Amino acid sequence: MLIEPGELLAQINSPDDLKKFPKEKLVQICDELRQFIVDNVSVYGGHFGASLGVVELTVALHYVLNTPEDQLVWDVGHQAYGHKILTERRERFHTNRLYGGLSGFPKRKESIYDTFGVGHSSTSISAALGMAVASQYKGLSQKQHVAVIGDGSMTGGMAFEAMNHAGVSNTNLLIILNDNCMSIDPNVGALKDYLTDITTSKTYNKAKDEVWKILGKLSKFGTSAQDVISKVEGGIKSALLNQSNLFESLNLRYFGPVDGHDVNHLAEVLKDLKDIPGPKILHCVTMKGKGYAPAENGNQTTWHAPGTFDKVTGEIYKTTPSTPQAPKYQDVFGHTLVELAELDDRIMGVTPAMPSGSSMNIMMKAMPNRAFDVGIAEQHAVTFSAGLATQGLVPFCNIYSTFMQRAYDQVLHDVCIQNLPVVLCLDRAGFAGADGPTHHGAYDIAFFRCIPNLVVSAPMNEEELRNMMYSASIHNGPYSIRYPRGKGVMPDWKTPFEQIPVGQGRIVKEGEEIAILTIGHIGNYAVEACKKLEKEGLNPAQYDMRFVKPLDGELLHEIFGKFKKVITVEDGCLMGGFGSAVIEWMMDHGYQAQVKRLGIPDTIIEHGEQLELHRECGFDPEGIAEAVRNMAEVSKTV
Amino acid sequence: MLIEPGELLAQINSPDDLKKFPKEKLVQICDELRQFIVDNVSVYGGHFGASLGVVELTVALHYVLNTPEDQLVWDVGHQAYGHKILTERRERFHTNRLYGGLSGFPKRKESIYDTFGVGHSSTSISAALGMAVASQYKGLSQKQHVAVIGDGSMTGGMAFEAMNHAGVSNTNLLIILNDNCMSIDPNVGALKDYLTDITTSKTYNKAKDEVWKILGKLSKFGTSAQDVISKVEGGIKSALLNQSNLFESLNLRYFGPVDGHDVNHLAEVLKDLKDIPGPKILHCVTMKGKGYAPAENGNQTTWHAPGTFDKVTGEIYKTTPSTPQAPKYQDVFGHTLVELAELDDRIMGVTPAMPSGSSMNIMMKAMPNRAFDVGIAEQHAVTFSAGLATQGLVPFCNIYSTFMQRAYDQVLHDVCIQNLPVVLCLDRAGFAGADGPTHHGAYDIAFFRCIPNLVVSAPMNEEELRNMMYSASIHNGPYSIRYPRGKGVMPDWKTPFEQIPVGQGRIVKEGEEIAILTIGHIGNYAVEACKKLEKEGLNPAQYDMRFVKPLDGELLHEIFGKFKKVITVEDGCLMGGFGSAVIEWMMDHGYQAQVKRLGIPDTIIEHGEQLELHRECGFDPEGIAEAVRNMAEVSKTV
Repeated sequence: MLIEPGELLAQINSPDDLKKFPKEKLVQICDELRQFIVDNVSVYGGHFGASLGVVELTVALHYVLNTPEDQLVWDVGHQAYGHKILTERRERFHTNRLYGGLSGFPKRKESIYDTFGVGHSSTSISAALGMAVASQYKGLSQKQHVAVIGDGSMTGGMAFEAMNHAGVSNTNLLIILNDNCMSIDPNVGALKDYLTDITTSKTYNKAKDEVWKILGKLSKFGTSAQDVISKVEGGIKSALLNQSNLFESLNLRYFGPVDGHDVNHLAEVLKDLKDIPGPKILHCVTMKGKGYAPAENGNQTTWHAPGTFDKVTGEIYKTTPSTPQAPKYQDVFGHTLVELAELDDRIMGVTPAMPSGSSMNIMMKAMPNRAFDVGIAEQHAVTFSAGLATQGLVPFCNIYSTFMQRAYDQVLHDVCIQNLPVVLCLDRAGFAGADGPTHHGAYDIAFFRCIPNLVVSAPMNEEELRNMMYSASIHNGPYSIRYPRGKGVMPDWKTPFEQIPVGQGRIVKEGEEIAILTIGHIGNYAVEACKKLEKEGLNPAQYDMRFVKPLDGELLHEIFGKFKKVITVEDGCLMGGFGSAVIEWMMDHGYQAQVKRLGIPDTIIEHGEQLELHRECGFDPEGIAEAVRNMAEVSKTV
Repeated sequence: MLIEPGELLAQINSPDDLKKFPKEKLVQICDELRQFIVDNVSVYGGHFGASLGVVELTVALHYVLNTPEDQLVWDVGHQAYGHKILTERRERFHTNRLYGGLSGFPKRKESIYDTFGVGHSSTSISAALGMAVASQYKGLSQKQHVAVIGDGSMTGGMAFEAMNHAGVSNTNLLIILNDNCMSIDPNVGALKDYLTDITTSKTYNKAKDEVWKILGKLSKFGTSAQDVISKVEGGIKSALLNQSNLFESLNLRYFGPVDGHDVNHLAEVLKDLKDIPGPKILHCVTMKGKGYAPAENGNQTTWHAPGTFDKVTGEIYKTTPSTPQAPKYQDVFGHTLVELAELDDRIMGVTPAMPSGSSMNIMMKAMPNRAFDVGIAEQHAVTFSAGLATQGLVPFCNIYSTFMQRAYDQVLHDVCIQNLPVVLCLDRAGFAGADGPTHHGAYDIAFFRCIPNLVVSAPMNEEELRNMMYSASIHNGPYSIRYPRGKGVMPDWKTPFEQIPVGQGRIVKEGEEIAILTIGHIGNYAVEACKKLEKEGLNPAQYDMRFVKPLDGELLHEIFGKFKKVITVEDGCLMGGFGSAVIEWMMDHGYQAQVKRLGIPDTIIEHGEQLELHRECGFDPEGIAEAVRNMAEVSKTV
């Protein structure tokens, strides 16, 4: 079912089309754009609240800026659906986030209007500043460079690093702070409180009025804003300096707060700001889910990416399974952490802004003094955990595999060199699915296994996750556990805790000729493969290694002593990954065997369902079976 | 030659000893401590300016705090020499930074007074906050937690992340901002300007006086400061709120600026602050090199770590070599970049606060509009470079290997997924030497080679570095070049540029039976080893692979076609490193050979001279020769 756009939106394929309308039509265009997003997401799923919140900002930006010549960078990109629809992608928008379809995030390969690929937060100011400095170097003084960044992303350290540089750069950079008090979960931290303070402050509102009054007068009289910048500055400064301003401290001219849902006012403001040179910030107050009542009034975290729903009633569709289902690994993590913490008062919980995604919210609710959401701040989350650990506590720091890339130095420098007992839980390891390449947890095995002192483990099922968490809590050193997004395989998963000795693998199935060594949940694919193969008369052995580091040397001696053909399977990159560790061990111990490594090849894999991507990479059940057949075939031929 | 301490310092082995002195003696103790540092560093070398700058702060902190019960965290740790001397390590201080001796940085294994191991910047607030939250959880309400952080480190994003969390934490945390306007090089960015502004502002000085007047009066009358915090707060607020304050924006109570060289005043201030609960910041103005005239008046970058010098004249000793010497790789980089930039106007330079260390300062001086020091901000440096690259420029972003760990996500997410032409130059790859484990560039081959689209290269000599830089500049995709700290091997290094095709290795020496495959400068050790072995009748072949990724498949087919014994050598971790890549290739292509991998083992290697550490790990020239002998021996026996 293709979604029909409204009457005006149907005429808009590009920003040039948008610019043909008089500004009186902008409100209607916004309404139609919002409706088109509601209509699409309710049927096809995707991110929701963030894009609704910036409909007016999106329309105003493309109305005023000369895109794609002017450079517009969206931070994170959850909120860029409106941008995509207005920039030549309306007719393909129903393929959003599907295998082979549009990406859920801005992406340079997809469109010339997507100036910078995003997904992870807090990169936009750095990127836009790079563009602005390049324009300055080339003498393109009229070119505009705009970063749109949420208040949540603003807590990520690199945003601050970028502002520190921007403040002395004297470039044509506009930062738009999209302040909706939310990350995916409600935003936390001192910055949030501060922004709320200034938004509600009378001084600021007075300042705002004064500044726009001055700008307004000037434009009416045809005076170029540039001629009178010093006057304007005087006006701003006198009005603002009575109040502390974080951004002015960093030498960014601060404007706002303005109502992010008044499209005409926004367009005026943006037009005026184009004439003011130098780095500046516009504080824009918006509401996630704006204009769709169930989202405005409901739980904003739920409406971040609600799945499909009835757009009239706001009822979110849920499939009710007829048989008992295996739980999500996320929920197993969340409930198990509380169970463990009840038994061991040293255990604490830390998440950087992913309480609901990781299920850390279960502990935050049950034990609010022992579980912390520290904001979008992976680096701080890990070193804060290290600080807790120095005092005899055992923090479980849960960070998605892809975001752990942000805390790599902290894991190495603050946790592992000091050998501190921090448990690093890597959620969404392996393919992230529809979020695509920016979010795939493809590299963690390779980048973690080279770090001394760090245990690298992955459970094949819920019971192993629970036992690894328990074992990690008493390990007394750095311990990482990776597991995928989504469901496990055990409907009855609340098994009693049992310690798994560090580095101990297990045999899943005896067999002949070929041994399949797997790590983590993907081992279940090998189980399926073996069932297929049994019918074909092939009977490989299967091992669940459980640890990439340390490897189970005893078990490997047994395996390489018995098998001359080995297949390794991992939901991670082949370069330097689990299979690589196995062949390193084999070479170091003087064995010679044929080893076929299955995993993610050395290329960027796009978005799609997890299984679609596993198939593409050849390690879905059929891919594994085929690898076994090929290996068996070779020996028959020989 | 052991350095004699002054009369009072001789009586101080621990903070308890220090506390026995009346405060009237503190000035003399500071003088003696400063002299002891000058005496030692002038003879033994080490970091200098930073520790001299915090002599008074160090004495005041240990005089007032109940260390080691109270937790004192030094950021970076360059400045902690005074701390080490006062905390049971005066008599071993002459072993500082030597193999087997004291670490140049605080280190948990070394002393109970070193609460958190440091080396990389900007970690202290996160760590101290973790400690403070742990104390709060345990009900230890009197325990103090202090992070001492420089204004340079404050620009690192994770410091901001930590302040955002600290501001809402209500813990017993004191951040001391040690404001000396310097990183190793002069500090840059908007924050620096801001701190200078408030330091010189009359409002602030008035505020300072007012606050301390109030605190002073209270303590004279025996009133506990806690009883009247609200009054004090009023005093602060009224005085400060007329001026913007970045830290107050983040809900950190701001005190200062105070003179960091007035030890008695500092002690008073610290005593008063102990009684004020909640997160707070003390802005302390110091001077790097304070109290040693040649450092105060000279170039502060030079005096950061001057080597040995004549303490009376301030003359820094330089060994004048009698024969022409090979240049440092750093200088080859710096001069070559300018040469290339003169030929190609797309080339830009970016460094995060290491202009002199990396020699980026050569380009910054020659082409100030094309080379940027962005502050201690590795994350921003890489994404800023990516932003430049989107506009058709070719940025060379130079970051030490160890600090590249801080920008890992940015390399992956912003540069490589988008396949942007950013040239990443990893200085100080391999063992850093005296700086030790926090600074060893041991992991970059492993953590970079798993990233799609990224070329991973390392030159064996100056000519190769130049040619790789040239080749990188025209590659049109992400390209990394790693090279070590220190000297190359070619006195005549200004060779004309020649393109090296991506992934092309070269043969260094034909030979028999055994092939040695090396990557980077360490290949010169293999040359030495081969010379030794020749005298013993052994004649291995040697290959300089030049690229870890892509590997030279053609050359490897030749090698594995001819040799059944292969040794790989790298100045990097064995887990997932260059040797690992070679055996992956071998297995994937169906070859069987015995492969011995030499490199850094999976353990934390301490500090020492580079050669000492190479020897310890068995890949100095003799280690390589021995590996060849062993492999040859085996075949004789067989």
